[in-house]
Amino acid sequence: MNERVKDALVKIVGKNNFTEDLIDLVSYSSDASLNQSRPLAAVCPTTTEQVAAVMKLAKEEGLTVTPRGAGTGLSGMAVPVKGGLVLDMARMNKIKSIRIEDRVVVVEPGVVYGDLAKELAPHGFAFPPDPSSGVVATIGGNVATDAGGIKGAKYGTTKDYVMALEVVLPDGRVMRTGSACMKSVSGYDLTHLFVGSEGTLGVITEITLKINPIPPLSSTAMGTFDRLDQAGQAVSEIMHSGILPSVLEIIDEPTLKAINENTNMGLPEVEAMLLAETEGHTETEVQYQMDRVKEIFKKNGASTIRQAKDAQEAADLWTARKSGYGVLARINKNLLVEDCSVPMSHVAELLRTVQEVAEKYDLVITTVGHAGDGNLHPTVCFDASDPEVSQRAHDAARELFEKVISLGGTLTGEHGIGLDKAPFMTMEHDPVEMEVMRTFKKALDPDNRINPGKMALNG
Amino acid sequence: MNERVKDALVKIVGKNNFTEDLIDLVSYSSDASLNQSRPLAAVCPTTTEQVAAVMKLAKEEGLTVTPRGAGTGLSGMAVPVKGGLVLDMARMNKIKSIRIEDRVVVVEPGVVYGDLAKELAPHGFAFPPDPSSGVVATIGGNVATDAGGIKGAKYGTTKDYVMALEVVLPDGRVMRTGSACMKSVSGYDLTHLFVGSEGTLGVITEITLKINPIPPLSSTAMGTFDRLDQAGQAVSEIMHSGILPSVLEIIDEPTLKAINENTNMGLPEVEAMLLAETEGHTETEVQYQMDRVKEIFKKNGASTIRQAKDAQEAADLWTARKSGYGVLARINKNLLVEDCSVPMSHVAELLRTVQEVAEKYDLVITTVGHAGDGNLHPTVCFDASDPEVSQRAHDAARELFEKVISLGGTLTGEHGIGLDKAPFMTMEHDPVEMEVMRTFKKALDPDNRINPGKMALNG
Repeated sequence: MNERVKDALVKIVGKNNFTEDLIDLVSYSSDASLNQSRPLAAVCPTTTEQVAAVMKLAKEEGLTVTPRGAGTGLSGMAVPVKGGLVLDMARMNKIKSIRIEDRVVVVEPGVVYGDLAKELAPHGFAFPPDPSSGVVATIGGNVATDAGGIKGAKYGTTKDYVMALEVVLPDGRVMRTGSACMKSVSGYDLTHLFVGSEGTLGVITEITLKINPIPPLSSTAMGTFDRLDQAGQAVSEIMHSGILPSVLEIIDEPTLKAINENTNMGLPEVEAMLLAETEGHTETEVQYQMDRVKEIFKKNGASTIRQAKDAQEAADLWTARKSGYGVLARINKNLLVEDCSVPMSHVAELLRTVQEVAEKYDLVITTVGHAGDGNLHPTVCFDASDPEVSQRAHDAARELFEKVISLGGTLTGEHGIGLDKAPFMTMEHDPVEMEVMRTFKKALDPDNRINPGKMALNG
Repeated sequence: MNERVKDALVKIVGKNNFTEDLIDLVSYSSDASLNQSRPLAAVCPTTTEQVAAVMKLAKEEGLTVTPRGAGTGLSGMAVPVKGGLVLDMARMNKIKSIRIEDRVVVVEPGVVYGDLAKELAPHGFAFPPDPSSGVVATIGGNVATDAGGIKGAKYGTTKDYVMALEVVLPDGRVMRTGSACMKSVSGYDLTHLFVGSEGTLGVITEITLKINPIPPLSSTAMGTFDRLDQAGQAVSEIMHSGILPSVLEIIDEPTLKAINENTNMGLPEVEAMLLAETEGHTETEVQYQMDRVKEIFKKNGASTIRQAKDAQEAADLWTARKSGYGVLARINKNLLVEDCSVPMSHVAELLRTVQEVAEKYDLVITTVGHAGDGNLHPTVCFDASDPEVSQRAHDAARELFEKVISLGGTLTGEHGIGLDKAPFMTMEHDPVEMEVMRTFKKALDPDNRINPGKMALNG
């Protein structure tokens, strides 16, 4: 980076908030995906004015800018493929206000999900989408990617909670969208165009979120099914039952086997395990809902049904679901954590398809997922240093996504498009929709300077 | 309308779906607001292809097009201010599919809200936003205006349920947006740009909605408060309590008085009445929640607290809330039903402000509203044929909106901007946001041909 531009950046953000040290740039060259590309430099702005000044300078100097949260994204959206500048938003991390009576919090984008959760918990409130990276992921990243989580069936995703934004546009103009009112239909909903836009339209500098009271009581139960179609049918019947479990997860046989081979959990090695959680303000309500769920498990031939007797037993049940990734990461060189959604009635069919694809490409693919909202995470276990295996893994992913789309599914339920799924965009989106997305991108970022190369928006 | 264009339109939609009869055009010249403007002709397309052909013809012939649902809008969004063609979507009224296990329904835009509700009820499901015009309003209109309703606090508004759309763009291109999957973050969220865009960006021809199971049991209670600030404090404390009532309504003193003067209800003439509903799958849960609400009523000095003992008593309580508009319509020449939202902690302050404005302008303004989501409907009772009174009513509305904005509120919670609030848009939205809205409008509708003159998007 030339000295003049460097000096100008240092002048804007201060010496301690600018870096071109190799060790930093290596960190900034990747996220939680397998992509890598090194930026020229990185800045950590601490105010909206600094972000605006950086964007104006970048425009004058023809620099690309890639905004970044905690870098926990799994699709490469924070990787600066065209080099340029990384805009690390982590130091804009103030919780500006918590207004319980208005069900609103206002935060800067660098606030960590877990930190906000800790502040809200004593009030009995939460911002419900809870990505598994929540201990480190930032709210700005959650919003830019429309992060999901385990409670999507009942509580939706980040988009259902973003009420208003402050955004710095690619040319440095500052814009406010939306309203801190629970209900507003004043003008176009620009807020939701930015939610999930993966930093390709502007830099989010302030977020107003709706928060929810969380019922104080919950219960957890698991059901094991010898056959996948029994579990699939159970999911469909729960959907029909009028009960909306706060969590309804599915774990497939390869995952159960991998856990058993590497832990002492001794899980039943069945085709599918379902885990459900119900909630309420009273034990009666929680148990009523759980009884309906267990009846449906039983009716569909569950080989085991176990309801946790207390919080410890519930935690033990969740350990199985949560340990999958850790176990797989330990025993495999690389994991390609995929992410796709189908309508809930196709969950069992999709799981079967995953196994067919795994066999065809001679790969181990394990799947866990959010059965209650149709969002599954097939995880390809492979060695990325072997080009032949790597190619097979990527071919398998393409074939899988073709099947997902043919089932009425979507390329990504919560991990985003980024770099990894950009080549698949036209599988899902018709040419007119692609054109309109590109029109809007071009309208706000005519020089393609902010997070270029992502989402198939252009070159 | 010239014969050549007329023949071309008839060729597209058929003779019975075209009209230029005066009696029809008079109907099409207004909606539920006080605005009027007559179109040249109206067509009622029955397929997406017909809509696309009409839009292409309109482009060639330089005709403006105003899409229309049932015409129940209160802000003039369906009034064809520039004449041209009205596109009456009422005959595209098929429910295409109901897939309970996927929590999805697919409908054409002309499906009436109440008809869909009737189809879903036997399954125990609903599309929760329930505008008071729901018996006649169409789903297409609900989506185009992001309709709200009485259950917004717990269930949100239309935008929280729209998953995917088929849209005909102003140039006749057909586009699909979104996904029928519960979770999808694939590409820009174009769906929500169309939700609430009041027909200014394209014509919605198919809608995929998320549906919710509705808990089977509910209870209703009312509390009366001699002082407005007691009611306001009660609302704030309910928000803090962890209970999310499915309904929490407020009725002000002028409304209670108007009802008493014209019915036999004999309501207590207090400064504010609150009505709350709680829900659950078990009586225990419903009562637990209602007990919390009643405790808060009591703690804040409620002069009366009454919980309905059965469905009939509950219905009686709701009659008070629902009869307000009918009574006012009977005793006044004209009603200007306003619509604004504030953060919930400002509900009492806003109600007081409404009364101050009413006194200042020597008008009767009564207010009911959705206290649980901060959305209030001050209703100006006046004689529109008297220009002086009319002017006062409009001046009062402007002053009211200035106060609303100063309280962190929004111009409209659920009735939309349309014509009536277009002059106020810049009170709420900063110049950059206005510019970006106009940029997107221009990107899709460069000739300003679809629903021109609305939302201050341009001339």
